[in-house]
Parts: sequence; C-alpha cells; structure tokens
Amino acid sequence: MHELVRQLFPICRSITGDGVRQTLAILGAYLPELQVHEVPTGTPVLDWHVPREWNIRDGYIKNERGERVVDFRYHNLHVLGYSVPVHGWFTLEEMKPHLHSLPEQPTLIPYRTSYYTETWGFCLSQHQLSALKEPRYEVCIDSSLTEGALTYGELLLPGELAEEVLISCHICHPSLANDNLSAVAVAVFLARHLAQGGHRYSYRFVFAPGTIGAITWLSKNAEAVARIRHGLVLSLLGREGAFTYKKSRRATADVDRALALALREAAVPHHIIDFIPYGYDERQYCSPGFNLPVGCLSRTPYAQFPEYHTSADNLDLVRPGVLADSLLLVQEALAVLDANRRYQNRCPYGEPALGRRGLYGSVGGVAAQPNGQLALLWVLNLSDGQHSLLDIAERAGLPFAQIQRAVQVLIAHDLLDVLPN
Amino acid sequence: MHELVRQLFPICRSITGDGVRQTLAILGAYLPELQVHEVPTGTPVLDWHVPREWNIRDGYIKNERGERVVDFRYHNLHVLGYSVPVHGWFTLEEMKPHLHSLPEQPTLIPYRTSYYTETWGFCLSQHQLSALKEPRYEVCIDSSLTEGALTYGELLLPGELAEEVLISCHICHPSLANDNLSAVAVAVFLARHLAQGGHRYSYRFVFAPGTIGAITWLSKNAEAVARIRHGLVLSLLGREGAFTYKKSRRATADVDRALALALREAAVPHHIIDFIPYGYDERQYCSPGFNLPVGCLSRTPYAQFPEYHTSADNLDLVRPGVLADSLLLVQEALAVLDANRRYQNRCPYGEPALGRRGLYGSVGGVAAQPNGQLALLWVLNLSDGQHSLLDIAERAGLPFAQIQRAVQVLIAHDLLDVLPN
Amino acid sequence: MHELVRQLFPICRSITGDGVRQTLAILGAYLPELQVHEVPTGTPVLDWHVPREWNIRDGYIKNERGERVVDFRYHNLHVLGYSVPVHGWFTLEEMKPHLHSLPEQPTLIPYRTSYYTETWGFCLSQHQLSALKEPRYEVCIDSSLTEGALTYGELLLPGELAEEVLISCHICHPSLANDNLSAVAVAVFLARHLAQGGHRYSYRFVFAPGTIGAITWLSKNAEAVARIRHGLVLSLLGREGAFTYKKSRRATADVDRALALALREAAVPHHIIDFIPYGYDERQYCSPGFNLPVGCLSRTPYAQFPEYHTSADNLDLVRPGVLADSLLLVQEALAVLDANRRYQNRCPYGEPALGRRGLYGSVGGVAAQPNGQLALLWVLNLSDGQHSLLDIAERAGLPFAQIQRAVQVLIAHDLLDVLPN
Repeated sequence: MHELVRQLFPICRSITGDGVRQTLAILGAYLPELQVHEVPTGTPVLDWHVPREWNIRDGYIKNERGERVVDFRYHNLHVLGYSVPVHGWFTLEEMKPHLHSLPEQPTLIPYRTSYYTETWGFCLSQHQLSALKEPRYEVCIDSSLTEGALTYGELLLPGELAEEVLISCHICHPSLANDNLSAVAVAVFLARHLAQGGHRYSYRFVFAPGTIGAITWLSKNAEAVARIRHGLVLSLLGREGAFTYKKSRRATADVDRALALALREAAVPHHIIDFIPYGYDERQYCSPGFNLPVGCLSRTPYAQFPEYHTSADNLDLVRPGVLADSLLLVQEALAVLDANRRYQNRCPYGEPALGRRGLYGSVGGVAAQPNGQLALLWVLNLSDGQHSLLDIAERAGLPFAQIQRAVQVLIAHDLLDVLPN
Repeated sequence: MHELVRQLFPICRSITGDGVRQTLAILGAYLPELQVHEVPTGTPVLDWHVPREWNIRDGYIKNERGERVVDFRYHNLHVLGYSVPVHGWFTLEEMKPHLHSLPEQPTLIPYRTSYYTETWGFCLSQHQLSALKEPRYEVCIDSSLTEGALTYGELLLPGELAEEVLISCHICHPSLANDNLSAVAVAVFLARHLAQGGHRYSYRFVFAPGTIGAITWLSKNAEAVARIRHGLVLSLLGREGAFTYKKSRRATADVDRALALALREAAVPHHIIDFIPYGYDERQYCSPGFNLPVGCLSRTPYAQFPEYHTSADNLDLVRPGVLADSLLLVQEALAVLDANRRYQNRCPYGEPALGRRGLYGSVGGVAAQPNGQLALLWVLNLSDGQHSLLDIAERAGLPFAQIQRAVQVLIAHDLLDVLPN
Repeated sequence: MHELVRQLFPICRSITGDGVRQTLAILGAYLPELQVHEVPTGTPVLDWHVPREWNIRDGYIKNERGERVVDFRYHNLHVLGYSVPVHGWFTLEEMKPHLHSLPEQPTLIPYRTSYYTETWGFCLSQHQLSALKEPRYEVCIDSSLTEGALTYGELLLPGELAEEVLISCHICHPSLANDNLSAVAVAVFLARHLAQGGHRYSYRFVFAPGTIGAITWLSKNAEAVARIRHGLVLSLLGREGAFTYKKSRRATADVDRALALALREAAVPHHIIDFIPYGYDERQYCSPGFNLPVGCLSRTPYAQFPEYHTSADNLDLVRPGVLADSLLLVQEALAVLDANRRYQNRCPYGEPALGRRGLYGSVGGVAAQPNGQLALLWVLNLSDGQHSLLDIAERAGLPFAQIQRAVQVLIAHDLLDVLPN
C-alpha cells in the first residue's frame, strides 16, 4: 500500500482534470476491472452542475532576476487549486491578497482551493512569504479552466447477493499522502482482497473527487443507490492515531454496530462519534433524501492533526504498518456485515441434547466450560428469527468469530436453519 | 415588577373574597383586557364545589388590659386563613390548640389555612407565644364565611393559531411576596410583552386561587382545555436561587424540552426534576384525565427555602434583578416553543450547492468554518419533515437562535418549506 | 428449614433413582398435596429421552489388605454420579483416569457426574489420591443402570386465577447442602406459607432433577406452561452472601421488576444480572420456544463460592438465618407480583376532593406531608388504566406496601376501580 501511495503522491489532482485520470490509470493497474467514467462539464447532477475542467502545466513567482521564488514544479501545493490563468508583473502589495501561508506553521505550505469562485493564488510557507521583499514580481499560472469532464472510477465486485456494500473515498487532493492517498490505497487493497471471492454482498468501490464526485455518482446511479445496504467512506487511514468511526445518520445501522464491534474486538484505541453533517462524502450519502447507512472511518480526523492540509502531509507521515492495520480493521468489520445473518433454532423448546451430539463435556464441571460452550448456547437461545449474529455477539459479549464458529457447528448438527436475507 | 409586587403585598388574599378581587383589579390596571370571573358558592366544579366566600375585617388577641398582643392589622398572616368568626374570653389553655408558631424560627409568623375544616386560629411568632402568660385573653376574629363566589382572572392574547399556550399562577396567598406575587408579576409582564404581538400561538393567562381555582377554570373551560398545546405554572420566581423546572407528567413534552434548552442556553444554575403529583396547579393540569403538557417553573421550590410560608417571605426577599431574569428565561423558553416548527428541505438529495448561492466560504479551509455554516448543514440534513427545530437544536448542540437564523437564510434561498403546524 | 435440609442431606440423589423418590417422600411429609410423577425410561421429552434409571448400593476402592481406602458409605460424593457397575483388580495406572480430585483444595472431595457418557469413576480428596501408592487395588461399584423412570414432584396451590406462578428447583444433587437442599427447603416452606391461601395467582411448584427434569416437565405440561405468567428458579439460598437475581430472557418481565423492587426494598446487598443461557433450569424455561418470564434467585452463584460442588458444601455451610432471609425475600417479591394490578381513578379530571373525604391534613402545611399523602396522589395520578402498581411504586420511589395501602384507602372511598387482570 505504501508503494501505491508513493506512486500516486507526485500527481497534481483536483476535482477534475488529468491528475484524476492519471490517478485512476494507476489504480487500474491494481484493479483491472476498474471502470473510469467521464461526465461532461455542465451536466446537471442533483442540485449542482459538473464544473469546468481544470488543468495546470506550470506556475511560479519570479523575482526581477528571473529566479523562481515560488515554483509549482517544486511542490504542486504552491498553486491554489482551480486558479485561473494569470501572467504579468505585480507589486508585492498587489500580490499579497493572492498569497496564502500559515503563520503558526512557518515552514509548511498550506493546501487551498477555490473551486467555485474564480480567482488565482499561491500557497507558500511563511518563511517564503517573509522573504518576499522586492518591489515587484513576475507571476505566472499556466492553467486552463475549460469545457471538459469530471472523472471518477468505479468497481463492482459481484457477490451472491445483488445488495451492495459501498466503499467510497475522495481522490481530489494533490500531493497529500494521508489525505487521502492512504485511504485510496486501503480501498484498492481491500478490493483486491474481496476480488478473491467468498463474500455474500456485492461490493461497489467509488473513487471520486470529494463532494461533486459523490454527488455526480449519486445522481447517475439511482439503481445502485437503491441496492446499498451498508457503506463506508474511508479517509485518513495512514497516519498513526486512534481510529475514529463516525456513525451514519441512522446511528444504529448495522454498519455502525459492525464497526463498533470490530473496533472493540481489535482492542485498538478508537473513538466512535455521532453523525454530523460535515466531513467527507458521508455528507452526501447521508443527506436526508438518501439517508444511506454509510459511516466514515478515519484515524485522527480532518483538522485534528497538525499536518492536516499542509505540505507536512507527506510520504513520511504515512506508515506501512498503519496502513496494514487500517486494512485489517476494515476487512474485519466488513466480514461481520457479510456474515451477519439470522438463523432459526430447529429445537427451540428447551435446550437440544448437546451431549448426545458430542457437543457437551461429558463429565459435568460447570465452572470450567470454555466460552465455546457458551457460544453454542447463546446462538441456540437467540436464534428465534429475531436476532442477527451481530445481536447475538453484542448480547453475549463474545467475539463475533466465536459466534460464527458456533453457528457452523450447529448447522453441521442440523440444529440451525439459515433464514432468508 | 417589584413595584407591582409592592402594590399587591398588603392585601389579605385567600381562595375567595375581596382580597382576590382587589388583586385582580390591580392586575387589570396593567392588563386592560383581563377578564374577571365570579363563580357562585356551591357551583359543582369537577369533583369539588365552590366553597363559601371568606372575608375578614379584623382579628386580635387582647390581654386583660385591652392591649392587642396579636393583631391582624399588623400582619394579615396572624389570622389562620378561613377562620370562622369568634369572639370571647379564653383561658390560655383553651386558646393554645388554636395558636400556631414555629419553634425553630422563633421570630417568624407562620402562614396557615384551614379551608375545608371549620375552625379558627392565630399564627404568631414563638416569641409572641412564649410571652402569653396571663390567665385569660379576649379573642376576636371578625370574619365571615358566606354564600358568595370564587373569583379568578383570565386573559387571552390571540395569535395566528387557535392553539394555546397556558400560563397559570396561584393568587390565593396573603402577604407573601415570593409565594406567589413574584410569579404573578412575571406573568403580568410576560403578558404585556406578548401583547405586542408577533407570536404564533394564542396565549392564555389564568390568575386563580390554588387548587380550587385551577379546578374551577378546568371545569368551566373544556373547549379552551382542548386547545392547550403547551403550558407553564409559574411560582416562586423572585427569590435568589437556582431555577427549578419540574417536568410535565408526559416528561418529554415540547414544553419540557424547551425549558431544558432555554435553561441550558441561559447558562444559569438550574435543576430539572421529574413530575410528581404534588406542588402547584400542575397537579390539576396533569391529572390523568387532562394529562396536559404543563410543567412548573420556580426558583428554589416550595418548602426548600427558610422563609417559605412565613412572614420572612416579604418584600425584601424578592429582588428586582431576579424577577427580570425570571421573566427573560420564560420569554426565551416560550420563544422556542413559538418558533418550533418543522421544515422540509427542498433539495434533500445530496447537499444543495451552497457555494453557488453565496452560502459557503469560497476558499476551502474546513477547520475554520464557523458554526453558522454547520447550522445551515444541520437544518438541511434534518429537515426531512420528521424533525422540529427543537430536535435539530438538541441534536446539533447549537444555540436555538442560530438554528433559527439558519432557517431564515435557507428560506430566503428557497431551500426550505415550512410544514403545516 | 435447616432441619429439612438435615433430613435430606444424607440421601444419594441423582437425576433418577431411589434417592429422588426418598427425597420426594420426605417433602411429601411437609406438603401432603405433593404429587410424585414417574416418567418411564425412553420416553421422548422434547429433544431428549428419559435416561435409564441409576441406583447404587455400594462403592469402594480396597487395598490388598482389604481396607476401604475410598468408601461410598463414608460419603456419597465418592462415586462419580451415574457410574456403571465395575468390580475387579486394577493397577494404580489403570485406575487413575477414573479418579477425580481437586489439587488446589486438597482436603475436599469433588462432585462429578457422567450422565450421558457411560463410564465409572471415583471422586476423592487430593490427599487420598496422593496416598494411593500400592501397585493394585480392588475396585467395586455396585450400581445399576436399568430401564426405570425419572421421578419428579409437583404441587399446585390454586388461587383465584387460573394463571400460574412457577417455582422450580433442582433436586438431583447428592449430599450437597447449599446446592440445592437450601432452595428445596425454601420452596417447601414457601409452599406451606402460600397454602394458607389469600393469593390471586395459582402457584405451581416443580421439584425435579436439573435439565432433564425441567425438560420432562415442560414436555408433559403444555397446558400448564401456557398458564405461567411469572416464574422463579430457586437455587443456592442457604449460604451467606449477597443475593443474585438473574433476569429472565425477557429482561423487563414483571418478575424481573418485582425481584428488583423487593431486593431494593429489603435493603440487602444484591446483584441483578442479565440473562445468560447458562445456569439452572431457567435455561429450559427461557429457551426461545417457551421464552417464559422466569428468572433465577440465588445467593452467591454457582462456581463462585469455594465450597461449590465439593464436600465442603455441607450442613455447616447452610445457616438457618440465611434460609429465613431467603424465604422472606421470595415471599415479598411474590407478594408484589400477586398484588400487581391496574386500577382506574374514578375522578381522573383534576384531583378528587380528598379533604372532604378526610384524606387530607386540614391545616395546610405542605412541607410536613407524610409520604402517605404522596402515595395517595401517585396512585390517583397514575391509575389511568395504563400503569400497574409496580409501575407506580417504581415511578414514585415509594415502598410497594405504601402504594398498596393507598390503594386500599382509595377503594374504600370509591375513588378507584380495579381493572380486569
């Protein structure tokens, strides 16, 4: 995963443009079935329209000696995202409203965009800004804002069921590693894992620019939307820090409970927070008209770590081990959702005679019973058609995997029927 | 308000009689639309009958030298409320069962009544009682208990809606300032404030003697009762001390939530307590047949402050600033109820494009978003026809006023429809 | 009760056999109406079959000198329950897999059984085991495992209602005093108490071997099962230690609330724990097909006290005072259930005029009202047909007995109607 992050890092992405296309081309090398969609500028999507496409070739501020004192080629954060083209000589005073820095983090370049107000600008470190002392500078942004398209990637991994689990992550940020190449990499490797098969649900991956990308996808996929049963937005999964799971608007959806269970069972530091209508694309999936059961998994959330939206969100910030732990956690939570069925105890009156079936210690020492015994009894007791395995695991306080093993044993002994989905 | 309390203080009120009439006459000077009702003695009201009317002209205990050692003209608490007439000489022993004092507060005169058992009595300080050492005294209570009427005042301030908010306070106590002239004054000034208009609900004020007055009003106003949507009993609002809001029997009525919100937002010390079938006239409004959503707002509750039902509940105990704070709190809570509507997001699928409408910071720095932005998003997200503004304010944890401002902005941009009441 | 425990203690009980018959014969001396049922070996009962009947006459391990080094006549725990007959000479090595001891409690004999796997064995103290140093021993278990019957006792105490309260306790353990002769004794004396009459529900007592006994009873009593409204499994009630009430699978059944109330009112140390599908015969009563409202009352639960399932669970462990307290607690909880009716306030609009009926202090000093007054008001306020006396006692926070007295007073004044069950 870290190697993928490294490949993607140098690309200058935005909500449209060739940076997104290059990114999806690289993902396609990992996911041959990935489909790339282009939606033309001006297409109405829900309450929005697909914006003009932005591309950039170069950008700099030169002093009178012709030296680049701010240079897009050095770091693509230097140009304000969606800057319109500009070329000319500006006095320092004229330039200042177009310069963005972080006085409290004077060595870092901030990340800024202006998607919906036409302007241009540069982002630079406070040290760079302070060093600008000459009377005038040559400013150039060689960008274009033209009719074009919005590009997103989509991958469907069919399962036994037509019902879908949605995995979505934003791909619109330029050279920021944790935000959100980390989650893109986790999603790619999750897809490769799931592509090996063995899952009940169909899994749909959406790699799209934030906000407008999710809105575009929602707008054009009414039938897929209707099939979504669970969903996760993935973001910021490569930097060390406690997991943060933000619940869906529904608050008690299965995905909310499965993430809570997986985090608890993983015994890792984590926070579970309530839904708020701010954040990543769960804002769109959880808008009241859709109200999809989609939560958001991060590690330390946006704006809460010092490297957030700065040039310090670089390849060093993202750790291979952290990416691996993140992937594992997502896999475990999805495994819970995938296995979360309801069963019917075929011997609901009294306990079935487990001893006769070899499912009971024959010399009765109650205290020494392992939890395996207890798991059998919990599954039998709650498999009344009302309770899912998540219900049972939560109520029993036993690991989900142990409940699953009990189910296997009981099915093998004809004591359980699986119920329709 | 303190001036009104001062005007009302000297009057000897009871559950019937001229003291009530004089009180309502003074209130009428502040509230020209106040209607005074007289309900004749013997009228059946729910399970009760209107009692005989009690009036008193004088009352005293004289020693053999003709000196008044206890004198109604000095303090109207000296005569047990509803005392039947008596005149004669009594030995100290004969008199003692008729004398009420507070041994633990030896300088204070207690307040006592005997509405439903015919007797007579005097209330006096323990010091006065201890000083009674002579063998016999002349006792005189010049009162009358006759066919007459029960008197109460009522004021309706029509709003856009026929549905009503009830404000009720007891007016049956003689010279006690906090209990309940404080709340009477707050109610009068609240009515004057609401009379300026601009409210959706109609507001009904009932100034009535405790218990029998509320029962009489309930008995004679079935149609108004059916229109009550929210209600508050006001009591004990002039003495310093934390607010106490006692919830309605329904416990989760809008009035209960609005008072909790207003108290929380006012950031004042307060207690919210569960309904119990004891207290003021919320007992009648919350009787199971009516079960009205009526709570009770006090500061330190009855029997929990040392001056309660004694001559120390005087004009000094009630503070102008405290009255003003009480009025403000009630106004804020009622403003919440009045504004508490449900709206429908007209763009429920995805977020509407706020940037296009100038409702979004154009240079995207997520962390710096003020709560105003968040308020817009919360209102949009929860305006699904199910959630009221109270629901939204509670869930968002944002000030109600900020939620209201967001509603105004969104309506101005055609993003919200108001739903029928 | 302790005398009954003493009578029952020496008998070698198991899940079938003459020990159970002798036990029930002794109980019959206390409960003349007790019915003893015999269900033949092989009878299908739910998912099980009644097992062969086990009886034992003698059992020993002799050394070469003919001395009994382990002797069933000394303690009936010495023979593994349901041991098949054996007689012969065994080397120590051959014998060892058949010997059970407690290395960490080296002076105690453990209690072990093997109901559903045919084997034989001895239980002995670790000291006894360590002393076995000779090369070979004579082993003899003079038992029989034959076609016969399973025996259980049943007692029905009819009340006004056909609906039943079930009291069940296991009687299958040999010489263990707390487990479960303590609870058997409490049940017997509870039955004698209830036999005096005055109860609304019918009460059914089941004295049966654990698991298979309850399963047999459930299998053969479908009609009685349908009449069970509340139930308690009694166990481990003679040893000192905090009460433990384990809730029924329903978790909020009246029996769960009544036990919680009785324990709270008794002001004794106690724990209330959630249902788990392990324990005593609540496992069967709370299996999903039956899902009866049956909880389990113990003191320190199984496996949580050091004497559990050892020879230290003897007559000294069980204290007369503890038995008496246990009986009292059960009686109080059942009295709550028996009295837990719903009433209808006949004056639901406003408070009824209590003063006119002599139900109110005539000189109105609010603060001094005793809770008796408050109990009247709570019963009136909540007797709307929706709330039971348990609801009222819980919400009022007043003793159940006080609520009951208020009901009596209000009925005597024609203010309440009792509602059909």
